[in-house]
Amino acid sequence: MVGQQQVVDAAAAARVPVPPAKPLLRTIGGNLMETFFPDDPFRAVGREGGGRRGRQAVAALRYVFPFLEWLTSYSFAALWADVVAGVTVASLAVPQGISYAKLADLPPIMGLYSSFVPALVYAAMGSSRELAVGTMAVGSLLFAAMLGREAPPGEKPELYAALAFTATFFAGVFQAGLGVLRLGFVVDLLSHAAIVGFMGGAATVVCLQQLKGMLGLRHFTTSTDVVAVVRSVVTQSHQWRWQSVVLGSGILVFLLIARYISKRKPEWFLLSAAAPLASVIAGSVLVYLIHGENHGIQVIGYLKKGINPPSAGDLLLSSPHTMVALKTGIITGIIGLAEGIAVGRSFAMLRNYNVDGNKEMIAFGLMNIAGSCTSCYLTAGPFSRSAVNYNAGCKTPMSNAVMAVAVMLTLLFLTPLFHYTPLVVLSAIIISAMLGVIDYQAVGRLWKVDKIDFCVCVGAYLGVVFGSIEIGLAIAVGISIVRILLFVARPKTMVLGKMPNSTNFRRMDQYTMAQAVPGLLVVRIDSPIYFTNAGYLRERIMRWINYEEDRIKAESLESLKCVVLDMGAVASIDTSGTKMLEDLKKNLDRSSIQIALANPGSEIMRKLDKSNVLGLIGDEWIFLTVGEACDYAQQNCKTGIGMDVVECAVDPENMV
Amino acid sequence: MVGQQQVVDAAAAARVPVPPAKPLLRTIGGNLMETFFPDDPFRAVGREGGGRRGRQAVAALRYVFPFLEWLTSYSFAALWADVVAGVTVASLAVPQGISYAKLADLPPIMGLYSSFVPALVYAAMGSSRELAVGTMAVGSLLFAAMLGREAPPGEKPELYAALAFTATFFAGVFQAGLGVLRLGFVVDLLSHAAIVGFMGGAATVVCLQQLKGMLGLRHFTTSTDVVAVVRSVVTQSHQWRWQSVVLGSGILVFLLIARYISKRKPEWFLLSAAAPLASVIAGSVLVYLIHGENHGIQVIGYLKKGINPPSAGDLLLSSPHTMVALKTGIITGIIGLAEGIAVGRSFAMLRNYNVDGNKEMIAFGLMNIAGSCTSCYLTAGPFSRSAVNYNAGCKTPMSNAVMAVAVMLTLLFLTPLFHYTPLVVLSAIIISAMLGVIDYQAVGRLWKVDKIDFCVCVGAYLGVVFGSIEIGLAIAVGISIVRILLFVARPKTMVLGKMPNSTNFRRMDQYTMAQAVPGLLVVRIDSPIYFTNAGYLRERIMRWINYEEDRIKAESLESLKCVVLDMGAVASIDTSGTKMLEDLKKNLDRSSIQIALANPGSEIMRKLDKSNVLGLIGDEWIFLTVGEACDYAQQNCKTGIGMDVVECAVDPENMV
Repeated sequence: MVGQQQVVDAAAAARVPVPPAKPLLRTIGGNLMETFFPDDPFRAVGREGGGRRGRQAVAALRYVFPFLEWLTSYSFAALWADVVAGVTVASLAVPQGISYAKLADLPPIMGLYSSFVPALVYAAMGSSRELAVGTMAVGSLLFAAMLGREAPPGEKPELYAALAFTATFFAGVFQAGLGVLRLGFVVDLLSHAAIVGFMGGAATVVCLQQLKGMLGLRHFTTSTDVVAVVRSVVTQSHQWRWQSVVLGSGILVFLLIARYISKRKPEWFLLSAAAPLASVIAGSVLVYLIHGENHGIQVIGYLKKGINPPSAGDLLLSSPHTMVALKTGIITGIIGLAEGIAVGRSFAMLRNYNVDGNKEMIAFGLMNIAGSCTSCYLTAGPFSRSAVNYNAGCKTPMSNAVMAVAVMLTLLFLTPLFHYTPLVVLSAIIISAMLGVIDYQAVGRLWKVDKIDFCVCVGAYLGVVFGSIEIGLAIAVGISIVRILLFVARPKTMVLGKMPNSTNFRRMDQYTMAQAVPGLLVVRIDSPIYFTNAGYLRERIMRWINYEEDRIKAESLESLKCVVLDMGAVASIDTSGTKMLEDLKKNLDRSSIQIALANPGSEIMRKLDKSNVLGLIGDEWIFLTVGEACDYAQQNCKTGIGMDVVECAVDPENMV
Repeated sequence: MVGQQQVVDAAAAARVPVPPAKPLLRTIGGNLMETFFPDDPFRAVGREGGGRRGRQAVAALRYVFPFLEWLTSYSFAALWADVVAGVTVASLAVPQGISYAKLADLPPIMGLYSSFVPALVYAAMGSSRELAVGTMAVGSLLFAAMLGREAPPGEKPELYAALAFTATFFAGVFQAGLGVLRLGFVVDLLSHAAIVGFMGGAATVVCLQQLKGMLGLRHFTTSTDVVAVVRSVVTQSHQWRWQSVVLGSGILVFLLIARYISKRKPEWFLLSAAAPLASVIAGSVLVYLIHGENHGIQVIGYLKKGINPPSAGDLLLSSPHTMVALKTGIITGIIGLAEGIAVGRSFAMLRNYNVDGNKEMIAFGLMNIAGSCTSCYLTAGPFSRSAVNYNAGCKTPMSNAVMAVAVMLTLLFLTPLFHYTPLVVLSAIIISAMLGVIDYQAVGRLWKVDKIDFCVCVGAYLGVVFGSIEIGLAIAVGISIVRILLFVARPKTMVLGKMPNSTNFRRMDQYTMAQAVPGLLVVRIDSPIYFTNAGYLRERIMRWINYEEDRIKAESLESLKCVVLDMGAVASIDTSGTKMLEDLKKNLDRSSIQIALANPGSEIMRKLDKSNVLGLIGDEWIFLTVGEACDYAQQNCKTGIGMDVVECAVDPENMV
């Protein structure tokens, strides 16, 4: 009796406290803070002056416009570095802009427009120092695929351009809205694996589309799937132009070699940055000299001089086509964010600073809204440009402003020079850029580390390549969501055993030396308990108990007296969860098996207390550690009567 | 040196093992088993005979047709109990069936048909012993609301009936499909709180609709929202029939008293079971005697004699209306499942046996498919009937068969007796049943235990009452899904401290006696790490570190040397998660803060190993317990240089 009393005292000494009730508003405030401001973005603002309004206002302004921050300490050396980087990026931006605009079936000049205004906006608002703003290949292709169906660019070029502006506007509003509402985590719902597969598929599709330019074809399928493209190419084999093929292949080989070298030796980055412009110049000169346009080599033709004309009046905000533009805007907007934020963060890691996802969203959004009013289409932060910017030694977003000025000068004075630029060169530039996007090494890593991620990736890839961009995206998002649902609906439970010479309990499937305690079953729940998994957990725990009973019968062991639930990993619980524990307790009571909880968290204790489940289980059956629970149970439990009486697991939840 | 060596040895002695690679197929098999067969349903089949095919086949057949199981041990006493229960339920089923058919705007006779064939199917296939099959109020109302728009029952009664059969057919196919594919967890995605709110709202709407019958109105709004109904009632105040109001109110008061008494004294259950039939008889006799149909009391009128005519030929499987029927079928099918399975499980708990959710889905599905071919509409297991069945002492699903026979006899011989039954009596029966569905006590419990659940519940209720049934359902599902996403996107992290006189570490916010270890920060992650939360977790952990640095600076404590991550509650990890740990390690390396992992699970260890993150962190920094990690870190860590250099948290995931 004395021994028992001591055990009781020891258990009482280290009790699990029921936390005091907190005021409702403070709880809600804390939860909102954790949900929407996990990175505590206003910390710097709050730090400034204990109560000094003026300094706080300055800090807040700096928070919204990061350029105020870096401009105060801007040095001449940094300016020089940014000018070098900006000019280098511009030399890539001009040919790439023209190429991607062709990909989007928009006038080539719009590619140049899109490197001007948005880049200026980002220079003021952006928090990444390396991101170089510009149009992106996948977004361009999506515009062509989704808007082209509504207004064929060949037949109604003006309506098509207006739709492109409108979609860009909606993308911007959507992006800025996500940022303002601090819903940055929406982007996180696309898994890494899904994005690798989707981007790889899109890059493959983009490359296939370039066969039109490379082979000098004039007609081509409007479908993007590999079957239609191959059929279109093969059936037109008599239309192939060898001049185009030779010129294109030559330039592609040159670009790939340049990229290979600068990948091996980063100090030669200028080679890969300047190679596209060099190709354009060489191709243009060649075509001009041999009059290539008469030998089956298509050229860009006339480009209008002058900077961005306004386009705010073209926005179709209440037309029958608005819905298509809205859908296109949302889809491309989220892809732009996913790519841009990922690129920004990657380089920020190399330079050891932080990129605020929600702030970036607002910057991207405003940049696209401004762009949609100045004849630009969707812009983000493509990887290729940003990598060149980084390698060229940029120091601040000022490099974007420099690039914008360089592009502006091109627009004002140099556009006639692009008249003879052959389309096949643009195709070669696109292919070379896209081959870098297909990340086959990542696919190998996925296979090695996580088979499900691999399936997600391959599914998205095949969906894009054999279906369409949208099908691939739907597969990627669909599989990602199903995976989330399975994660929450099927949490892990495991049986723990006692480690030798220790009071620790560990998973018996992982630690072979862990030993079951006779008469006890220790089950650990590795997830919050809420409505999606309460039913499953009840069934799974009953199955553990049934198995244990079978084992006990087969090996004639001491019969089951007590089930100890290790609640240490149960972060939260809802009303379905407390009901589940209540059911479990009632169930086990019928077969005289005791239930004990070890190490429940404070939220769990509060909810169990409020829902009266704590009273049902009994305060004395709540323990700080599994070890204490087992010691107490071994001394205080009568032998159970066996589970065959109770073949049951029940759910009176949802009772109506 | 010797001391250090000992510590190293001790750590090496209790190492966290990297599990051996398992064959891919076995891993997949195990995961599929856990996901789709968590309750191990074929356990009984597997148990039978070690290899005896014949006995296994019998066990499998018994699994599919539970009646084979209970019929073998069926006794005369059980038969008698089932006959009593079946006849009692039939006395409720007949008036309720007619009432609900009126609610669904279908011919009253279809309510009787629907208590015949489906009940027979369930008697053979169902695994709940108490569930009584029949139509349900909410499903009936949904049929009227969703199908009525497509084919107004007043104008095109035949098309409307055909649509109802088709929707029932699709509901059955959907239910059986969910069961066969073992997707029972789909039902779990509707949270308990959402269902309470939705059902309460639907019951309110159903009651409001009955004002038409109670007031004897001939015209009524087709909307279900409270505003439209009140306006319709008030504007027609000159049409109110006092005869109808008096008769209806009298019967309603009688029914409510009967229900109140039998709730207080369960042995008087017969009172509440027989009250509806008694009301019907009394009302019919009264109307017949006073020629009530001439005094503004509407009556049912002529009911065709004879059992269910076939209706398989009426199914509209390829008509322009098919999509509406499909949508209605899926929505009502899932609501029927949610209600039916919950009711079945509730009573199973009282009687201590198990109801297999997936098996029930197949039974419900086949019952509705059979019903759709025999002039029945959607059936499930309504609570009111099942409660009567339980209280009447049913022993097996045979009571459903008895009820079916009793309803059949009614159909064959007694239908003319219902000619003079006043509609107002049916309205009173519906109101009385629906008032029991509004679970205001549950709402109070939700408020007390979980505020978010309370909001979900009230949102669904208001959506149904002020919007429409579909809006309410959409709100309920929407809030539930957002809640799941927030659960997975914002897991809990917490700082642990050492408990006095113990090697245990516990949450410092819960246990005030827990003490921080100088120079160390112990952070516990309470969730699997995967793509939805990897970014958040990285930011949140960095914020904990920043806060700790601020505290150290403010209180001039020993600077931070090591961050210990307690991985005990991390059930799984994906490629985004391993990348997150890699980033964190690289980040902390730059400010010379060591990182240590405590108690990672076997899956975590395998994936960290495969992704080379284990090598990066170093084997020696993986510990079995937080205590060991802290001891080792205190002896082996140099002092960190402070975090101000590193204001960074980065995500090169999604890099393209």
